[in-house]
Amino acid sequence: MRLSRFFLPLLKENPSEAQIVSHRLMLRCGMIRQEAAGIYAWLPLGFKVLKKIEKIVEEEMARAGSIQLLMPTLQLADLWRESGRYEDYGQEMLRIKDRHEREMLYGPTNEEMITEIFRGTVKSYKDLPLNLYHIQWKFRDEQRPRFGVMRGREFLMKDAYSFDVDEAAARRSYNRMFTAYLNTFARMGLKAVPMRADTGPIGGDLSHEFIILADTGESAVFCHKDLVDMPAPGPDVDWENLQHVFDERTSLYAATEEMHNPDDFAKVPADKQLSARGIEVGHIFYFGEKYSKPMRAVVNGPDGEITVHMGSYGIGVSRLLGAIIEASHDDNGIIWPESVAPFDVALINLRPGDEACDAACEKAYKALNDAGRDVLYNDSDERPGAKFASMDLIGIPWQLIVGPKGLAEGNVELKNRATGERQTAPFDDVLAQLTAKKV
Amino acid sequence: MRLSRFFLPLLKENPSEAQIVSHRLMLRCGMIRQEAAGIYAWLPLGFKVLKKIEKIVEEEMARAGSIQLLMPTLQLADLWRESGRYEDYGQEMLRIKDRHEREMLYGPTNEEMITEIFRGTVKSYKDLPLNLYHIQWKFRDEQRPRFGVMRGREFLMKDAYSFDVDEAAARRSYNRMFTAYLNTFARMGLKAVPMRADTGPIGGDLSHEFIILADTGESAVFCHKDLVDMPAPGPDVDWENLQHVFDERTSLYAATEEMHNPDDFAKVPADKQLSARGIEVGHIFYFGEKYSKPMRAVVNGPDGEITVHMGSYGIGVSRLLGAIIEASHDDNGIIWPESVAPFDVALINLRPGDEACDAACEKAYKALNDAGRDVLYNDSDERPGAKFASMDLIGIPWQLIVGPKGLAEGNVELKNRATGERQTAPFDDVLAQLTAKKV
Repeated sequence: MRLSRFFLPLLKENPSEAQIVSHRLMLRCGMIRQEAAGIYAWLPLGFKVLKKIEKIVEEEMARAGSIQLLMPTLQLADLWRESGRYEDYGQEMLRIKDRHEREMLYGPTNEEMITEIFRGTVKSYKDLPLNLYHIQWKFRDEQRPRFGVMRGREFLMKDAYSFDVDEAAARRSYNRMFTAYLNTFARMGLKAVPMRADTGPIGGDLSHEFIILADTGESAVFCHKDLVDMPAPGPDVDWENLQHVFDERTSLYAATEEMHNPDDFAKVPADKQLSARGIEVGHIFYFGEKYSKPMRAVVNGPDGEITVHMGSYGIGVSRLLGAIIEASHDDNGIIWPESVAPFDVALINLRPGDEACDAACEKAYKALNDAGRDVLYNDSDERPGAKFASMDLIGIPWQLIVGPKGLAEGNVELKNRATGERQTAPFDDVLAQLTAKKV
Repeated sequence: MRLSRFFLPLLKENPSEAQIVSHRLMLRCGMIRQEAAGIYAWLPLGFKVLKKIEKIVEEEMARAGSIQLLMPTLQLADLWRESGRYEDYGQEMLRIKDRHEREMLYGPTNEEMITEIFRGTVKSYKDLPLNLYHIQWKFRDEQRPRFGVMRGREFLMKDAYSFDVDEAAARRSYNRMFTAYLNTFARMGLKAVPMRADTGPIGGDLSHEFIILADTGESAVFCHKDLVDMPAPGPDVDWENLQHVFDERTSLYAATEEMHNPDDFAKVPADKQLSARGIEVGHIFYFGEKYSKPMRAVVNGPDGEITVHMGSYGIGVSRLLGAIIEASHDDNGIIWPESVAPFDVALINLRPGDEACDAACEKAYKALNDAGRDVLYNDSDERPGAKFASMDLIGIPWQLIVGPKGLAEGNVELKNRATGERQTAPFDDVLAQLTAKKV
């Protein structure tokens, strides 16, 4: 993409309304624009990152055997009356009446609807286990929306739902999602710690939040230090035997504020006690028959009717952009992990109009695109200092810098955004290096 | 994807509520499920087709130079008061109040919001032309939602918006979208005819609907026959000179009912007069300063302030599924064009449990997946007749049929869903044929 044909409205000044760094940087980078309190438009740069994150989530959900569908944003109030949650949910639920005065709502989550779909379509225990998910916009009418996309009102969530014949099978489904979440967040460069959590309005008695440690986190968390750097199980784990993945982590202390037990925490060796602040990026629940029983989601079993056991599994897709930035930035701007970067390479032409610079940049632009790299070609008339600053700000992992002096000697510069390291090397060597990098 | 791990809840009976074939087939194929009047969940098969259609739209929009972003579903009423449309829009607009009694609405279209984004970010005529689009769920509170996804209330629309310095430039932008639409629909196997259309609540004085001819179409249309089979310009057209693409088509008579002029139509040679019914799949508008003037969307020009000229360009993404099915089906079910088919190949194991059949199917499944084909492996215990019927019903373009008799002679069968043609051929030849087909 040539910058001259892209739409990247950067802000020169720090926006005064932003209290945390991710919100400030997303506004400054022209990633989002507020359209109402807690409601954002995703400008092209932000939209690209959102899609990258979505894709990782989709790939890891598929690997764990979950099937994608898409439920609508609006739901009937009567559906929520079946579970008893319509009255319970409080003011965070956006209630709507249509032209015929039918009561509806903008879905804050989808337990009821997926249960309705299940009971209307699945008849036999032979069709279980089943895990269905979607990625759809949700609405929660927060009293005080704040921190940009971290606590917005209209937000993008991945929510999956599992259906099993009994608790033992449901726990295996839980472990699959537990494992998928570890892998998902690791692929985004995040260290996410699963912590025992309160089940809140979803319900049930087994629940973990996946927490990114960050000073700007909204909640206090307590955990054993070893959990932070414990590597994710990876894609090649034995998906039929995941209890050890769960046990290895849950045998160490980790709890959110609501579930914190100071006595148990005191038993963690003092040098391993970590008390910090965290950002919730995922939340998984096992709630048994909480919805299936009142809503009559049953299948025919070998010995009669079975009320299915369910779980639900959320990832805050739009919130993840904020979480990743909180975890990965410096004074100059965002440092995107390669897996979610909006572009792979920023190609910086230091002197547009110079024949040699233009030719070299066109050559690099074509070669990188042909190799499947997503390139932002900064072909603007700004002075070099402004170009460096804006490319640092938006945090593309690699900067390929083409200037007349270096080029006279056949050289270009390659800068690694994360480390700040710069190497001057022959043009073709750098191109070979960048095109050889795996996508 | 193995059918045993997929979620494909087919209906055996014809649903009584469906009045047109696409609605009936989408329900029978387990593509959609109604959650409220005119509001559908997209089950996995339907979701896959929706994503294929989205991808084609995205690719053709990118080719035409439009940049993707994403605006939220909910908008502030005050924004629509700026253009004067809040009161005008009538009962089709779903009006909402949040917990603080702020007036909002579920966006039926986005002219106001994109104009707000533009005026807040673009300052100079040098940044024009600019074309921005998104694909987002919209809501129109239809009095009588019907025909499944063809006239739903919550529907997926692609809407693009162009910004130019004057009418001449805006017409060039219009021609780009006009051309992109011809290519987009052609890639989906559709013959879409651009017709002069009423501008309705969007406004302006130049507007074309892109119409698919179908007996079940909601509106009467009138056009010169030659337009129906006129080939799309294709991707290699000269994008800087598109006036001829526009002129070639608009010089022939083509109008929707609202714009129909019987006297002009009578001048079309009698054997070329086509009076038919049509389905609108796209609608493009040039409306000059209708929004930019009241909303003050101006840029600095070389000689002072310029109020920008705008156009908007919609494609009914979710409606397209219905339109494609209306245009491409037979008594046995859907016939998907390859470009939008939910799977490329249906692999039918006629005798699961038979060692030779299972081994051959596993080999084919792996080879096809490795070659990038999306395969639905029907590994179910149903009898062959039921398998043939369900695979015909869901309309995957190719069926690879593996049975014990043929296999004993090293043969399998390959069936083309569209033509019904079957060929018996050596297993490896058929595999080579299917893996060689370009994606």
